[in-house]
Amino acid sequence: MAAVASSSSFYPNQTPTFLSPHPTVSHLFGISYSSSHKSSPGRLQLKVAATAKLVMDQKTQPSSLPTTVDVHLGDRSYPIYIGSGLLDQPHLLQRHVHGKRVLVVTNTKVAPLYLDKVIHALTVGNPNVSVESVILPDGEQYKNMETLMKVYDKAIESRLDRRCTFVALGGGVIGDMCGYAAASFLRGVNFIQIPTTVMAQVDSSVGGKTGVNHRLGKNLIGAFYQPQSVLIDTDTLNTLPERELASGFAEVIKYGLIRDAEFFAWQERNMDALMARDANALAYAIKRSCENKAEVVSLDEKESGLRATLNLGHTFGHAIETGCGYGEWLHGEAVAAGTVMAVDMSYRLGWIDKSVVERANKILKQAKLPTCPPENVTVDMFKSVMAVDKKVADGLLRLILLKGPLGSCVFTGDYDRKALDETLHAFCKS
Amino acid sequence: MAAVASSSSFYPNQTPTFLSPHPTVSHLFGISYSSSHKSSPGRLQLKVAATAKLVMDQKTQPSSLPTTVDVHLGDRSYPIYIGSGLLDQPHLLQRHVHGKRVLVVTNTKVAPLYLDKVIHALTVGNPNVSVESVILPDGEQYKNMETLMKVYDKAIESRLDRRCTFVALGGGVIGDMCGYAAASFLRGVNFIQIPTTVMAQVDSSVGGKTGVNHRLGKNLIGAFYQPQSVLIDTDTLNTLPERELASGFAEVIKYGLIRDAEFFAWQERNMDALMARDANALAYAIKRSCENKAEVVSLDEKESGLRATLNLGHTFGHAIETGCGYGEWLHGEAVAAGTVMAVDMSYRLGWIDKSVVERANKILKQAKLPTCPPENVTVDMFKSVMAVDKKVADGLLRLILLKGPLGSCVFTGDYDRKALDETLHAFCKS
Repeated sequence: MAAVASSSSFYPNQTPTFLSPHPTVSHLFGISYSSSHKSSPGRLQLKVAATAKLVMDQKTQPSSLPTTVDVHLGDRSYPIYIGSGLLDQPHLLQRHVHGKRVLVVTNTKVAPLYLDKVIHALTVGNPNVSVESVILPDGEQYKNMETLMKVYDKAIESRLDRRCTFVALGGGVIGDMCGYAAASFLRGVNFIQIPTTVMAQVDSSVGGKTGVNHRLGKNLIGAFYQPQSVLIDTDTLNTLPERELASGFAEVIKYGLIRDAEFFAWQERNMDALMARDANALAYAIKRSCENKAEVVSLDEKESGLRATLNLGHTFGHAIETGCGYGEWLHGEAVAAGTVMAVDMSYRLGWIDKSVVERANKILKQAKLPTCPPENVTVDMFKSVMAVDKKVADGLLRLILLKGPLGSCVFTGDYDRKALDETLHAFCKS
Repeated sequence: MAAVASSSSFYPNQTPTFLSPHPTVSHLFGISYSSSHKSSPGRLQLKVAATAKLVMDQKTQPSSLPTTVDVHLGDRSYPIYIGSGLLDQPHLLQRHVHGKRVLVVTNTKVAPLYLDKVIHALTVGNPNVSVESVILPDGEQYKNMETLMKVYDKAIESRLDRRCTFVALGGGVIGDMCGYAAASFLRGVNFIQIPTTVMAQVDSSVGGKTGVNHRLGKNLIGAFYQPQSVLIDTDTLNTLPERELASGFAEVIKYGLIRDAEFFAWQERNMDALMARDANALAYAIKRSCENKAEVVSLDEKESGLRATLNLGHTFGHAIETGCGYGEWLHGEAVAAGTVMAVDMSYRLGWIDKSVVERANKILKQAKLPTCPPENVTVDMFKSVMAVDKKVADGLLRLILLKGPLGSCVFTGDYDRKALDETLHAFCKS
């Protein structure tokens, strides 16, 4: 019944053969498989049972409908819609709007491209809804309290009330800031994520982490606050600058390294297609990433343990971002260099094989991502920023490190400090 | 078995006779009653069953233990400890500290009086805990984002991590700001309320409403975030200025008007004792107020309906506070004038008897609280501030108004606008 085929195409809706190493993902599309499967039949059986309802639902839907990944969080559950042309399907947005007033939060780069389209999608056939917008400056360096105040100002001056909806239209910075504004305006209003970068589509728009930076560290002020829905129109990636595209792949690669070896192997085979913006490859990578993220968030919303593993490379990465000034490096670029450092440290601890180090380095290079921190970031800068990381508990810095075969990791403060020191000195000046 | 006696003393721990109109309250203390009760036996029976466990617990405890009122919110439930000398019982604080690091947030007025005492209570016999403190300027005019940043700055510079505890030591402004800082620092850390004003002890420290003001309106930025515990040492009221004392009584009177006619009648008999700071009267008023608040919050944490009724007079009051500049009038003073306006409007709508208007006015005057807004606040100022009130929904201003016999109220947008206009014009210049 189920199998992994060996063609070089990506997206099951378009093709009956499918280069997925992960049967569950294919099942979500209700695809027919050939019988020559190579993955574990035992594991497969279990997953098929869990996704049976979805398979049947999909079979009754026309193919133009979006793929939906659900984040299961009790009464805070919500759908992630993924597909091409979703901004041309107004009902997907309108069904999640509360009240009659909407505030779209976006930035100077995204507004000229998609703001009108989003306002149209919110209002067409829906004359009772009025839409305000606030256009923020673009870049991580503006992800702070001062910029956030502009959102509150606009909301209050527009006399929005508790029955309003905020819409985040943009990348991770806009999503985090709009989400935090929604969490805190009148102690919480409804919000919808419309991520327009790979980074936001595969990671930051899903899971309810919102917040702003403090001059001394990233995301130190914020809230866990889930959106009402996430709408990913993959067409928005057509206008994404190359550097932003690659930055997002750092998080895609992360899912492979920490928990999904089959997805990692798929990426190794398809990174060139991803870099060339092959639509099917992108759609598959986004969906598979969202499934990984949704599963982790459903199990550990408030990051008491498991969820922290999604931060592979982020502690080193945050230090790079903070140390060289927000906005110099893109988040994913810093995470890429941070991932190499975390992998290096895992290897020094004897927790992974050399082959994992090599594969991680190779795929990051394929994605044209940096594999070491910038020259001006010193060991002391690393240590100083890492000391205020959110994963410090009672003074102990816990890290996400790989351990075991590719696809396995740990979140731990129980490691030899010498390995951390060696990694820091291997990658930067003292 | 149970009764309401007619002596003029207040606090059952000190006396076997008891001027309570509310048998449940007495039961919480495990007191023996005389047999000459006047309240409804039917109601009493029901309440006794509900508090039986508490009664038995109390009987096994020495009398120096605090009275405890529980706020029932599932896994976010917490105790309110009420009593004299509780800051001299370190275990009450220490049992609710998470981690080894504590940040006490207080102000310039309260710090010289109680900061050392609180630090001692946190650290005595507990050498692993270290305490930082941040001392903010005193007053509603500092309840803003700029002041809040000082709390984040201190927390980050002190390298506090997720396993830390914030302690709010002060009145409502400190509680709201410290609570919001705790809600948003690293997306949420543990916090404890130590309220030192009547206002904070009877109202703002309980129920998890946190936040700061925006220049255009009160509490427009914030979060619902529950404390780990509330510790009310009634001795802290000994140092409270008279105006602050009276301000707190506005909220005590509110509980009577909206939902507890017996408590209101008790207040009518005992307002002079409260104003004279009779310790037993104060302790009883605080406990009874906390019970009312805890019950409402348990039923409607996020203010979808019932909880809004706790804001009797607050929509008018917020307009006064915002209109004449934060800090000119104390919160309770504005609420008092706002309560008179809400009561006046309820009467104009034909929803209450003249006697309720008279009793409300009389008791507020007894508490030396204002019964009309300041002269410089105009009708237009009221309308402009009320338009951004959090209780506006889809453009409709909902108000808490009294309806029926004393102790009954409604939260509604369904009222004749003419009555609102008449009230505004009756109380202030156009």
